[in-house]
Amino acid sequence: MEQPADTPPAMILVRPQMGENIGAAARAMLNFGFTDMRLVAPRDGWPNPRAEALASGAVAVLEGAKVAPTLPEAAEDCSFTFATTARSRELTKPVFTPEEAVAEARARMAAGERIGFIFGPERAGLENDDVAQANAIVTVPVNPAFASLNLAQCVLLVAYEWRRQADLPPPAAERAAEPPATALEVERWAEHLNDRLDDAGFFFPPEKAPHMRRSLRNLWSRMPLQKADVQLLHGALRQLVRGRSQGG
Amino acid sequence: MEQPADTPPAMILVRPQMGENIGAAARAMLNFGFTDMRLVAPRDGWPNPRAEALASGAVAVLEGAKVAPTLPEAAEDCSFTFATTARSRELTKPVFTPEEAVAEARARMAAGERIGFIFGPERAGLENDDVAQANAIVTVPVNPAFASLNLAQCVLLVAYEWRRQADLPPPAAERAAEPPATALEVERWAEHLNDRLDDAGFFFPPEKAPHMRRSLRNLWSRMPLQKADVQLLHGALRQLVRGRSQGG
Repeated sequence: MEQPADTPPAMILVRPQMGENIGAAARAMLNFGFTDMRLVAPRDGWPNPRAEALASGAVAVLEGAKVAPTLPEAAEDCSFTFATTARSRELTKPVFTPEEAVAEARARMAAGERIGFIFGPERAGLENDDVAQANAIVTVPVNPAFASLNLAQCVLLVAYEWRRQADLPPPAAERAAEPPATALEVERWAEHLNDRLDDAGFFFPPEKAPHMRRSLRNLWSRMPLQKADVQLLHGALRQLVRGRSQGG
Repeated sequence: MEQPADTPPAMILVRPQMGENIGAAARAMLNFGFTDMRLVAPRDGWPNPRAEALASGAVAVLEGAKVAPTLPEAAEDCSFTFATTARSRELTKPVFTPEEAVAEARARMAAGERIGFIFGPERAGLENDDVAQANAIVTVPVNPAFASLNLAQCVLLVAYEWRRQADLPPPAAERAAEPPATALEVERWAEHLNDRLDDAGFFFPPEKAPHMRRSLRNLWSRMPLQKADVQLLHGALRQLVRGRSQGG
């Protein structure tokens, strides 16, 4: 909440595979002034000499990178995240062009929010479970007959779009003054509900359980939850369960 | 003059050095629907197997590339050309951002003109003599402290900008395909939760109960709930309560 108004969002790379691509992503970021890189479970560990070899002048971005085992931990201070993916697949979530996503991100940052853009592993991209944890989807409008953007190119386009809109007048910061829930707070609420529903035998039959869990998880990330909402929901669920243990 | 109104401009690579970079440029082009590549005196001759190896699915762009010994010959049918370069150096010429350049290009193409974007060799970029032959300059607004765009990235950004400004429907027409919950459905869900929380003794102490009820009711109306979400929430709550009546 203390960053200057024009500090760019965080770039969160989920399970990146090749160090070279992490280095290239760092360069792409720094070309447009991005410095906040976060890495979720990089395949080859961290630090990675191959990333440094490719980053050349952008090594400082790598040195400042935050490494976390899970996406919610990497995004813990972000109150709104965008998952870059080609299709929304089975999940229902707002889908933005890079232009729309950056406009949304800028409006939220002007209101004091912290934003993250999430990028998937090189081969397969983000999994549905990753996308379920994001608040919205960004899809680059590539040629449907030929879509071959690599990780660093995708980072580059989002960063370019951010910079392109820098000269436009800032959007009105008229959004709710209430502090939004962070990604980690939403994740903890989703886990709390998931666990109690597990206890209650909700996820049945077993073959449908993964889809049910994902739908429920996705629901919370689509909602504009505030910190106070999450507290209220935790309290309500605790009381429902307490009522149960007392024999209702 | 016979191309359809939305046919993208020509991408003209001047004295490109590495075949790999030509292949990568072809991919960058095709990602956003560009197919008209022109090569001025490629260092290693033409065709170039290294370019094809890198182009993968974009080989057709290479096969259709026009090769010419000089820039004026490569751009012979173009009535307006933009030189991509970091600085205008000693030349006096209009300088555009990619956004402005594409807007200018689109306006001219709508009037029947043929447009070319000119990119320099990997190391040194365009020479002054090349820039002198262009009608205008395009400068990507990179971080002045770190500018490391390579040839394919520069092509990619111009192509992206072209596509961004295309008057096409948004990428995911699948937006909000899911039916939203009606006000009555949201109300019934809010009542259901309210009643079960009442049973569980959640609204306590009594003097705080009205505020707690209102906060919870307000929460649901602020959320973009769909019909499927409401069904899922009803089911989850029923199961939580059923678990309770069975003695948890």
